[in-house]
Amino acid sequence: MNHQESLTAYIAAFVRELVQTGITDVVVSPGSRSTPMAMVMAEHPEIKLHVHVDERSAAFFGLGIAKASKRPVAILCTSGTAAANYFPAIVEAHYSRVPLIVLTADRPHELREVGAPQAIDQIHLYGHHVKWFVEMALPEKTDDIIRYARTVCARAVAIASQTPSGPVHLNFPLREPLVPNLDRNLFQTEERPKGYVKVHNGDLTINNTQFKETAAKLNGKVKGIIVCGNIETEGFVDAVTLLASALNFPILADPLSQLRSGKHNKENIIDAYDTFLRNQDAKSFLKPDVVIRFGAMPVSKALTIFLKENHCADHFVIDGGGGWRDPSSLSTDMIFCNETIFCTTLLTYIETKASKSFLGNWKDINKLTKEHMTTIRDSIELSESRLFYQLADMLPEGATLFVGNSMPIRDVDSFFLNNDRSIKVMANRGANGIDGTVSTALGASLYSTSLYLVLGDLTFFHDLNGLIAAKLYNIDIHIIVVNNNGGGIFSFLPQAEHEKNFELLFGTPLNIEFEHAIRMFNGNFNKIKDWDQLGLNMKNSSETTGINVHEILTNRDRNLAEHREFWRLVSQEISNFVKGDHK
Amino acid sequence: MNHQESLTAYIAAFVRELVQTGITDVVVSPGSRSTPMAMVMAEHPEIKLHVHVDERSAAFFGLGIAKASKRPVAILCTSGTAAANYFPAIVEAHYSRVPLIVLTADRPHELREVGAPQAIDQIHLYGHHVKWFVEMALPEKTDDIIRYARTVCARAVAIASQTPSGPVHLNFPLREPLVPNLDRNLFQTEERPKGYVKVHNGDLTINNTQFKETAAKLNGKVKGIIVCGNIETEGFVDAVTLLASALNFPILADPLSQLRSGKHNKENIIDAYDTFLRNQDAKSFLKPDVVIRFGAMPVSKALTIFLKENHCADHFVIDGGGGWRDPSSLSTDMIFCNETIFCTTLLTYIETKASKSFLGNWKDINKLTKEHMTTIRDSIELSESRLFYQLADMLPEGATLFVGNSMPIRDVDSFFLNNDRSIKVMANRGANGIDGTVSTALGASLYSTSLYLVLGDLTFFHDLNGLIAAKLYNIDIHIIVVNNNGGGIFSFLPQAEHEKNFELLFGTPLNIEFEHAIRMFNGNFNKIKDWDQLGLNMKNSSETTGINVHEILTNRDRNLAEHREFWRLVSQEISNFVKGDHK
Repeated sequence: MNHQESLTAYIAAFVRELVQTGITDVVVSPGSRSTPMAMVMAEHPEIKLHVHVDERSAAFFGLGIAKASKRPVAILCTSGTAAANYFPAIVEAHYSRVPLIVLTADRPHELREVGAPQAIDQIHLYGHHVKWFVEMALPEKTDDIIRYARTVCARAVAIASQTPSGPVHLNFPLREPLVPNLDRNLFQTEERPKGYVKVHNGDLTINNTQFKETAAKLNGKVKGIIVCGNIETEGFVDAVTLLASALNFPILADPLSQLRSGKHNKENIIDAYDTFLRNQDAKSFLKPDVVIRFGAMPVSKALTIFLKENHCADHFVIDGGGGWRDPSSLSTDMIFCNETIFCTTLLTYIETKASKSFLGNWKDINKLTKEHMTTIRDSIELSESRLFYQLADMLPEGATLFVGNSMPIRDVDSFFLNNDRSIKVMANRGANGIDGTVSTALGASLYSTSLYLVLGDLTFFHDLNGLIAAKLYNIDIHIIVVNNNGGGIFSFLPQAEHEKNFELLFGTPLNIEFEHAIRMFNGNFNKIKDWDQLGLNMKNSSETTGINVHEILTNRDRNLAEHREFWRLVSQEISNFVKGDHK
Repeated sequence: MNHQESLTAYIAAFVRELVQTGITDVVVSPGSRSTPMAMVMAEHPEIKLHVHVDERSAAFFGLGIAKASKRPVAILCTSGTAAANYFPAIVEAHYSRVPLIVLTADRPHELREVGAPQAIDQIHLYGHHVKWFVEMALPEKTDDIIRYARTVCARAVAIASQTPSGPVHLNFPLREPLVPNLDRNLFQTEERPKGYVKVHNGDLTINNTQFKETAAKLNGKVKGIIVCGNIETEGFVDAVTLLASALNFPILADPLSQLRSGKHNKENIIDAYDTFLRNQDAKSFLKPDVVIRFGAMPVSKALTIFLKENHCADHFVIDGGGGWRDPSSLSTDMIFCNETIFCTTLLTYIETKASKSFLGNWKDINKLTKEHMTTIRDSIELSESRLFYQLADMLPEGATLFVGNSMPIRDVDSFFLNNDRSIKVMANRGANGIDGTVSTALGASLYSTSLYLVLGDLTFFHDLNGLIAAKLYNIDIHIIVVNNNGGGIFSFLPQAEHEKNFELLFGTPLNIEFEHAIRMFNGNFNKIKDWDQLGLNMKNSSETTGINVHEILTNRDRNLAEHREFWRLVSQEISNFVKGDHK
């Protein structure tokens, strides 16, 4: 068997199986060693192949596609530091449970650790941050090895998809010459033409006895709350809403729980807790004796502190991914069960409803807090808090809101409240980095009707290069850059009290005009001067295509003062309310 | 002992020791968890602190400083994907033997793998690509722990510096609150104020018997060649030149051997081998029976093939770093000895000189090849080969030429020839990636009189963000962008014969105008129209400060044709010469 035939048959078998597992999108970065895989992938009629020259952005782009399409995505690069550039997105995929099939080309064994060019040690390159690593066999065309290639592929996709989803890494040693033979019928196979092995992934669930015991602990509890962080489990929104109604428990809904937007019942959904849980009187008034928590840890620090302060409460953490998401060691019961199954099944065991008074207290404080948010809406200047407060109104129906880390996600948490619109909120909250945000959003926008990215200037700058994908592939995206010329979040941290070196180490103003870069990427750029202009821009935005950047200039000091003044005002009103009406 | 006192004393002891080891430059990326280290570093009067918001660029920036200053550099970032962004530069540092002290802040043990924000598994984060990893103790102010912090610091710098140099990784778990107490006298210490432990690193050397045996194998050898790849060993240029004279061996000098430029004796230095070793007649005419090789593998593929074809020759590989740089398994003797010590000592054992005829043949062919390079100089159009051919003349005395990977380093190899100017040539040739090139060059420019970076458009784009450092710190750099709108090197590879999908997968034109981005970074941008303009620009360039970008538009197809036509022409002349004069 000649080299080219072996190479072609092996790679084609792998690519064919990749498509048969259901993968449609592949992100390829150009390189020499990866030539056979790239050329064969480009031949497959069912593969959407995206080419991205910067591997860091490429991997985040793949992550975004996987997040929005809810399907695994394969990413392919050549040997050497190219593969190392994938690392940040792989770490994010690992912690945010997103399935990625990472394919790296490598030098064959005889060219490793002997000073050959572009040869680095790629064995277990990503350490514990992938669910599975395979050093692939060299290409051969024997039946055994073709079956091996197909099985490893099916298995890799299954492992990546299996809950908790995550990245897997397959490393392909490939010998020169690297050009495959594309003249043959690449993707035809006689053996198991519909896929070598179909993997039936199961969901975790506890048994009836365990459900009965859990229900027994909840029955008759009066002061219970449900906390929902970032969660993507199918059917969860309706299931948890029904459970909360049955229990008369409030749901503290993180913006990434997808519970704040949509047409589902929002009777029990509390959305302003990040504001009112900063007030001591509210916290005393609302003490729970049982907590049921779903999803990742919520964004709100106020909520985290509140939960820690109530460490005596029974604390149920439900995780269908079998993780251990409990940074404050609060859980009394760690329940490894699919969240939708948990809600739906538990419901059948609930016998006694709590009285509505505790729920009523939560709803009263929540309502009071929201009434005072009008002070933000009435502010005249362009401000960060008002922007996030008004966002829900300004976005078109069916929009996806992708939120940058640091300040924007916190402001979304504080100010983006319950609404009946169909708006999906996304963010990179696995490791909460500011890196790769533009690329993740661009990838997500391929599977979203209309995507709005809101992010700070440092986050935008960190992945500015990612915009090349939008330029080359005519991707539509609306980007709202909240430009406070530096790291706005640090103004909220204790180091802000130490003026010396603060701007050098934390403020880090870049003093750049993004307009130039946007022009390079053929995008539209608008510097937003006032609310009317923003409103108008957002109104027209659904019709414009390509890259649309709306820049809002804000001021870090003024922003800090505004947030503090708002919290002070609301806090006062809450204290009056708690002490007056309810003592 | 209160928390802040422990934190401050521990971190200050570490930073103090860092300075005492000789480190002067530290690259810091902003973050919260790294606050105590950053704030304490900023207080030290002897630390040059560079702040860089993009950790990928930051690490390459540190790498560039370390390469040019020949001193270890510390880089500091916060926890999470920030640290993952360091990976590409760490891999490059590992393979190019550059000392980096990688300092990452981390969550303390109780906040790991429990869903805490920005907490990822940082234990052995960079796998085998660092020489040493230490999970640091939590801050304490006991004598033992202060001594521990100082010892680990001294040891880390020593290990990074020890041949072969490379990166080390220290991971610091840090608890909140993170602000240190800067009011105390941070850097005063009573115990061993001049440094806790000074490490005396030794060089590898073989003993006299081994030298005698090696000399015996060389004495009387007529057809010997010396091959020098990328090498930085002190005193090597003069030592190897003397050895070559004593042996009458030609030196095939890679552009990164630093042997082509300078005022040393260039009598035996062969610089045009990448061209003439493509000709079969020349290769038959110049067959060696002994090869002495120093440094990394040379850039030239023609040379690599030539060495493989002469696998029967005795092949000595000398490596002061004790590595195994021999991708073709050619070495008969692997000699772990400092290269300068090797040349100088071996010289004293050399008894009989080879006749000059073999050396003469190499010099004749080399001269003939170079005569035909005038055809390149006489071409009218702006072309890639001519640019590199004329570079040596155009650069000011004392300049550093930093060369991008893919085409530019190969063109430098082919066309940047012997000259008497003092020009240092640098490149990232550990893993040969195109990533981080701008940042490495910017870092290097801090310790260079006048730095010229020549690179392709994809390489420039990959690290365009790196220019922010030049803008913020007013770094002077001259950048010549050879813009052939895509991956020029792929036109030289076999996949170029397959037109279908070639532009999609390999050509990858970006179609962008860099001028916009350069304006964003406050740089000067010149589109070079002809040779006169380039000459004039280069002449005036030594006086201009800041970012200066000179863009030369070329065409990938024309470039391929020009290279091929040149090689064809020279090859013909060489064959005539060998067959005519010398048969």
